[in-house]
Amino acid sequence: MYKVKIFSVGKTKERWLEEAIDLYIKRLKGKMTIEWLFAKDDAALLSQLNKERHFILLDENGKQHTSRQFSSMVIDELEKNGSRLNLVIGGAEGLPPSLKEKGNLISLSKLTFTHQIARLTLVEQLYRALQIEQNTPYHKD
Amino acid sequence: MYKVKIFSVGKTKERWLEEAIDLYIKRLKGKMTIEWLFAKDDAALLSQLNKERHFILLDENGKQHTSRQFSSMVIDELEKNGSRLNLVIGGAEGLPPSLKEKGNLISLSKLTFTHQIARLTLVEQLYRALQIEQNTPYHKD
Repeated sequence: MYKVKIFSVGKTKERWLEEAIDLYIKRLKGKMTIEWLFAKDDAALLSQLNKERHFILLDENGKQHTSRQFSSMVIDELEKNGSRLNLVIGGAEGLPPSLKEKGNLISLSKLTFTHQIARLTLVEQLYRALQIEQNTPYHKD
Repeated sequence: MYKVKIFSVGKTKERWLEEAIDLYIKRLKGKMTIEWLFAKDDAALLSQLNKERHFILLDENGKQHTSRQFSSMVIDELEKNGSRLNLVIGGAEGLPPSLKEKGNLISLSKLTFTHQIARLTLVEQLYRALQIEQNTPYHKD
């Protein structure tokens, strides 16, 4: 069982977003758990991450991946870190600069996304990553 | 008033998606209308687009834009085409090849998105495009 933690600054809990995310959480059941950790500001985020050693950071200047590359990276990180993966989404002002040196920077798009769309896209890509690994028909390219 | 038509193959009407899209439609009121045209297959899409002269096509091999670049492009197209803009989202197998030569190809991300996430991202970027043009605090970079 894979255990993913997603850290973010700012909490978003719109009903539509919870509903959309839940669809993926249900489909991931038995394969991957996703735990959300909401920090109220950068200082709280840094303090939470102090206990973690490995993380992937979502940053607009990060490296972009295709879904297949994202899948390989995610599976690889999970295997290296005892089936655990930590992902970090910055707030509206981006990630705290001191954090950027400590993890792998990735970007979902050249476009700027809302926090909500970033959360949803990330969960869908995690689901897609497992489908790609398992070679199901979900991902077409 | 800007008039945008979004053509796509396949209909998606999940409740969460309608709710999320509605939030942007409401915020766009008085400034931009969005009309969705769902085609049942590529042939129906091609027939719908036959009547249109100008369109922007979402394709995984299209050019990527930052939100500012997307905004400039959208505003520019709207101004050139009498405040009208047509956008096309392909189905799971991508856009019909014969269409690709006829419009401007853009990509939302290197990642493969679901139809739902593409629709939501597109509407949010259209809203963001107007905010950028109007210089409101919505878009930070």
